[in-house]
Amino acid sequence: MSVFQVELKKVVDDSYEIEIGYQLENRLIEDLKNGLVGKIKKFAVITDSTVKELYADHIVTLLQEAGYQAREFVFTAGETSKTRKTKEEVEDAMLEAGFRRDCCIIAVGGGVVTDLSGFLAGTYGRGVPFINYATTLLAAADASVGGKTAVDTPLATNLIGLFNQPEKVYLDIAAWKTLPQRQLSSGMAETIKHACMADKEMFEFLEKHMEDIFAGDREACEYIAKKNCQIKYAVVMKDEKEQGLREILNLGHTVGRAIETVSDYRLLHGEALSIGMVAMTELAHRLGYMTEEEKTAVKNLLEKAKLPVEIPEYIDREALVKKLYTDKKVRDGKLRFVVEKGIGGIVEFEEGVFATPVEEAVARDIIMKMK
Amino acid sequence: MSVFQVELKKVVDDSYEIEIGYQLENRLIEDLKNGLVGKIKKFAVITDSTVKELYADHIVTLLQEAGYQAREFVFTAGETSKTRKTKEEVEDAMLEAGFRRDCCIIAVGGGVVTDLSGFLAGTYGRGVPFINYATTLLAAADASVGGKTAVDTPLATNLIGLFNQPEKVYLDIAAWKTLPQRQLSSGMAETIKHACMADKEMFEFLEKHMEDIFAGDREACEYIAKKNCQIKYAVVMKDEKEQGLREILNLGHTVGRAIETVSDYRLLHGEALSIGMVAMTELAHRLGYMTEEEKTAVKNLLEKAKLPVEIPEYIDREALVKKLYTDKKVRDGKLRFVVEKGIGGIVEFEEGVFATPVEEAVARDIIMKMK
Repeated sequence: MSVFQVELKKVVDDSYEIEIGYQLENRLIEDLKNGLVGKIKKFAVITDSTVKELYADHIVTLLQEAGYQAREFVFTAGETSKTRKTKEEVEDAMLEAGFRRDCCIIAVGGGVVTDLSGFLAGTYGRGVPFINYATTLLAAADASVGGKTAVDTPLATNLIGLFNQPEKVYLDIAAWKTLPQRQLSSGMAETIKHACMADKEMFEFLEKHMEDIFAGDREACEYIAKKNCQIKYAVVMKDEKEQGLREILNLGHTVGRAIETVSDYRLLHGEALSIGMVAMTELAHRLGYMTEEEKTAVKNLLEKAKLPVEIPEYIDREALVKKLYTDKKVRDGKLRFVVEKGIGGIVEFEEGVFATPVEEAVARDIIMKMK
Repeated sequence: MSVFQVELKKVVDDSYEIEIGYQLENRLIEDLKNGLVGKIKKFAVITDSTVKELYADHIVTLLQEAGYQAREFVFTAGETSKTRKTKEEVEDAMLEAGFRRDCCIIAVGGGVVTDLSGFLAGTYGRGVPFINYATTLLAAADASVGGKTAVDTPLATNLIGLFNQPEKVYLDIAAWKTLPQRQLSSGMAETIKHACMADKEMFEFLEKHMEDIFAGDREACEYIAKKNCQIKYAVVMKDEKEQGLREILNLGHTVGRAIETVSDYRLLHGEALSIGMVAMTELAHRLGYMTEEEKTAVKNLLEKAKLPVEIPEYIDREALVKKLYTDKKVRDGKLRFVVEKGIGGIVEFEEGVFATPVEEAVARDIIMKMK
């Protein structure tokens, strides 16, 4: 018997910039000219059927005008496209078009496009660089920091994927104006979640400037885009391996995801999350961490963002209680929840422990008594 | 406009051990008990329909006897199973069986099993640890070092995948005895390639001990298993990013892969590679880097390993010449070849350049004049 030791210790630098601004298409081209992805001259622009005409076509034209080889790969817009099948179709189209390891992927769109493209980039030719050009508030709030990329499968959400960091992220605030109001509201839910769990000042800013953001006010939009990055970054950096702290990003998601599924996706993710957050203010209140006034403030802010705060009548509440157990925080068959501490804080139950077991009876009672 | 900087610089240690020996199943169990993969108690054993009964079933039993939760996932043996579809089927079966992020994958088999399983492990739950229990000489020669994992697609071989390092590799020499002779010969081709490009002493050892290896002599098998690891490791370590040196591992593969495809996979990879290596000795000879005697020595060694050294009659040689252009070393439409320097060396054309452009007329002439 003998042993051969393979030594593979090295320093990896995955650092990148998130640029936040208004109409950043030309900034992207400038960055490429300045060597953002080295000598690469070949770009696969991945987008969906909605964003294609709004943004991606224009970016392809700009790339071609700048002398680059660029081709667009489009899939049907919507969460149901976030599958291994779509990934396979885009891969085959890229192979067919002659793309090999010497290309860079530019994802133009919201969270579905950036999640799928980042995953695809990570496995294409065993990894090609990718850039995110994010056009939604949700992507700004959720998908720009953390490196999570994935697709869904019939049996699990986001379970097949990679941690993969982009070369750069552009958050184009001008694009938010093109979002239907319901989508913008849905994206706002994650933003409000960030404020609730980590930043009272941001919460107060949202109370004051919600209308401005919906109206597309540049300064207000830039402020919350940046705040979202900062908060998510602070959490992710302190807990890269998902040991405990990262669970706080899950605030409202146990009930939220369950409602989303039980609604059969009639509710958007952010809408379901909004209802989940209302449930969590009640839990925090019962556990003594939140006053009646704070509860109301959260609810009012969600309503200001035109988000639902009540469980729709068509939801079977018993089915909802059962569905809570599919949450990834469940441990040894027990429900666990992240709990707010007033506004802008999260309870740390023990050192590094941010989720606490809750009896099903308590969760059921909260759900049954909610409007 | 504002910029948010995401700092992600860190030290990554992907080091691992390759243990080479005879019947290592119990060593695997011992290592797990000693914390090879931390506290993980849940194992997905991935294997193919041939290796299942020979090795994988036994390993599953040993795991269960040791108190671990273990389940076997089996796909049809053969190169044609190395697809996204098989990956998807195994993923779904694992999800169905309740495997989440808290598991470890053990790949038991040859290169197809370890390539597919390593890729699958890298994207399951955004990455779970994996262990390779390699049962073939080819896996020992090729798949144990370098971290390359992938699947094939109709349009490209090995183009969808990841660099992903295992927790440990076991090279079980006892398993080689169960290989059909043709498979063992095929695996020997990569071994002979390693000797030709990097190690004259190994070449001479093979000349002396080929029969011993085929007879399963432990010492001889261990020697070549270890030599293979050393040579591949030396190359891969010096060129992690595939800049140039790694191309020397491609010796014989331009013609080899082309013959493999044109034969419609009637020839095994190693058989096709063997013929490709014969072609390369002729090229090296014409370019003045190899004597007539060295050419003959390579050919004799390949024959000793029961590998073909002539182009089969059914091969359309014109089609073969055309197929050369699908090689990944092709640059600006020109064929490029790695060239041997005597036995145990490779020509470095310029600093860091190990492949040289060759006129199609020369390649054609070599192919047309070969037996």
